[in-house]
Amino acid sequence: MNHDLTLWRHAKLATLHGEAAWGWIEHGAMLAQGETLLWVGAESALPKELIQRLQTSHDLGGALVTPGLIDCHTHLVYGGQRAAEFELRLQGASYEAIARAGGGIRSTVAATRTATDAQLLASARQRAQALMAEGVTTLEIKSGYGLSLEHEARCLSVARQLGQSLPLSVRTTYLGAHALPPEFEGQSDAYVDAVCAWMPQLQAQGLVDAVDAFCENIGFTLAQTRRVFEAARNLGLPVKLHAEQLSDQGGAALAAEFGALSCDHIEHLSNQGIAAMAQSGTVAVLLPGAYYFLRDTHVPPIAALRAAGVPMAVSTDHNPGTSPSLSLLLMLNMACTLFRLTPEEALRGVTVHAARALGLQDRGQLVAGQRADFCVWDVGHPNELAYWFGRNPCQRVFVGAQERLP
Amino acid sequence: MNHDLTLWRHAKLATLHGEAAWGWIEHGAMLAQGETLLWVGAESALPKELIQRLQTSHDLGGALVTPGLIDCHTHLVYGGQRAAEFELRLQGASYEAIARAGGGIRSTVAATRTATDAQLLASARQRAQALMAEGVTTLEIKSGYGLSLEHEARCLSVARQLGQSLPLSVRTTYLGAHALPPEFEGQSDAYVDAVCAWMPQLQAQGLVDAVDAFCENIGFTLAQTRRVFEAARNLGLPVKLHAEQLSDQGGAALAAEFGALSCDHIEHLSNQGIAAMAQSGTVAVLLPGAYYFLRDTHVPPIAALRAAGVPMAVSTDHNPGTSPSLSLLLMLNMACTLFRLTPEEALRGVTVHAARALGLQDRGQLVAGQRADFCVWDVGHPNELAYWFGRNPCQRVFVGAQERLP
Ligand SMILES: [Zn+2]
Ligand SMILES: [Zn+2]
Repeated sequence: MNHDLTLWRHAKLATLHGEAAWGWIEHGAMLAQGETLLWVGAESALPKELIQRLQTSHDLGGALVTPGLIDCHTHLVYGGQRAAEFELRLQGASYEAIARAGGGIRSTVAATRTATDAQLLASARQRAQALMAEGVTTLEIKSGYGLSLEHEARCLSVARQLGQSLPLSVRTTYLGAHALPPEFEGQSDAYVDAVCAWMPQLQAQGLVDAVDAFCENIGFTLAQTRRVFEAARNLGLPVKLHAEQLSDQGGAALAAEFGALSCDHIEHLSNQGIAAMAQSGTVAVLLPGAYYFLRDTHVPPIAALRAAGVPMAVSTDHNPGTSPSLSLLLMLNMACTLFRLTPEEALRGVTVHAARALGLQDRGQLVAGQRADFCVWDVGHPNELAYWFGRNPCQRVFVGAQERLP
Repeated sequence: MNHDLTLWRHAKLATLHGEAAWGWIEHGAMLAQGETLLWVGAESALPKELIQRLQTSHDLGGALVTPGLIDCHTHLVYGGQRAAEFELRLQGASYEAIARAGGGIRSTVAATRTATDAQLLASARQRAQALMAEGVTTLEIKSGYGLSLEHEARCLSVARQLGQSLPLSVRTTYLGAHALPPEFEGQSDAYVDAVCAWMPQLQAQGLVDAVDAFCENIGFTLAQTRRVFEAARNLGLPVKLHAEQLSDQGGAALAAEFGALSCDHIEHLSNQGIAAMAQSGTVAVLLPGAYYFLRDTHVPPIAALRAAGVPMAVSTDHNPGTSPSLSLLLMLNMACTLFRLTPEEALRGVTVHAARALGLQDRGQLVAGQRADFCVWDVGHPNELAYWFGRNPCQRVFVGAQERLP
């Protein structure tokens, strides 16, 4: 293990730790030992005994530093894309015509099953690199376009390979209960049985960090979701849920009952659901890219979530059908513009609260004991990260104290 | 003058010329002489006598090529930015509180007047480079934050310098009639007199390619706009108009009467306005970034514009108050998602129709006689340029047949 001491000085730190707005330290410095922050504070207070043992020192020239960004909800691994479907719809084609032309989630399932492992890896890698260019250092990736044991395993394995081959932490989520595959047409209970039966095998291969489901009229029922969650609990796996996106199914309360890490989307979340999430410490993951792309008009209950003290995360929900977006910074702007988060809430949503939505205690803030994952930005103030849109001011990224190309 | 012959072959061409969708040539090639396209067509039909005289040949590996992108409506030159105002508003501050904190357009005017020429140039240059990274080869820049002869001249001159120092064409637009400067408080007619009086001096310095005004309740009246347009006509300068953004002022009909190059925003455009624009050949410039950022809900009359045959352009409207956006590709997605343009209409909106909105006949399509300004993209089909958002697939850019870094 690397015990080298590294110093970064002459920085403005948005630590997102402590009581101050942004966890602000105007003239800040950070020391890491190996991959971990050992000391963070005002440069004038740097402990002399540590300084004497330094291996490396970086002068950041007064630049802004934030924790590395965390994209906590993506469907990054899939075959094909759906631009032709997007175009057909804008040309006024009916849903039947689009279905005939092979549109919808089933087209992505078919393309994913057909793609080779190498193709899945190459396309997901390119997408991961687009996110990394803006400072993403931790990325969650869900399965859910394989929908068979073989193909779910392939997709989760590609996600794992991304984390091993890129300077990036990847967390994998098994979302077998995403949609009904064609071979289970009309047999959704039997498919849920299969999803539960595959779970221990996928876990045994080291492919599952958490389990997710799509609880919705057009997805799986509350009772089916409960069965998926029970299977996960039996295996000691944490759960998350695509909840109340299109209607209030009571999914958030169920998820809270299982101590879920997060409920995601939640445009139609009820007050009961909010209370249950607050009680269980479940994070609300907001996905403004899907809201925007679907031209939704039903905003999640931000004020009530805020009042109840439910932590709010923000993510791209990258997927080919409802959010073909590859900019987490754009999601900051959309979270503010469309959902009225403050810029600080939005930044907490892609750092400290996103970490919590993944069950990670070791990142998301700049404070001793956390991983030395952080970004250096070409802006004067962190509110600019949410203000500009379609601009990438990411200058430098450090992962576990090692610099990588953004 | 450079008469070298250059060939690009093995390309999929979206020429946006001719009757075919996208002006598509599946196995295409292009020849340029100096800065100008000499021949564009199917590779199999390349004229042999030209091939024998080639200096340079590029194999594009089957990649997609489109005309260089044209951002035909920006306010790129200004001092400061307004992220703090954005944050205050999201924190629930009242308009008075924001005004007290120095918000609004007047804060940008003050910051612009205070900034040195070098500061204005450096910040605008960085913004221009962000746009160029996505394939922008021609950029319009308006004044309108100086609001005095001296400061309007400084801003227009900075815009000119950008065009001279970057591999990019810049078109300058004099927008003195953007807002009332503090020294003319309560004297808008006197200010319009001044705007008209400064015009010949700015023109004599070679700083004005077109004249624009903001015709609105909170801007200038129709009668005042007419006076600005008359001054422009007397000097032989083409006009454009910020028209019907917040209300129907009849600005479009006035602009059409003066043969305006474009009417921009036009969320509240009337049928009369559309008919007048169709008659005069005026381009409708759609600005979905401002619509999005202002949370507007009044969509421009796209179907009626389409039916009337009014060409539609799409632009960022980059400005610090209502569209701090630096991605023209994101505007393609927003034009489709929010305004329901087709992907092909959106691409025409940032190429051939954007050229027309600037009065430029020599670019915007890939056809013999046009400038050899074009982009090579890492996507399979041009509909993907509008489908993905927050992704930059621009691989290579040629300006006047010379490759530049994107
Ligand atoms: Zn999702
Ligand atoms: Zn404008």
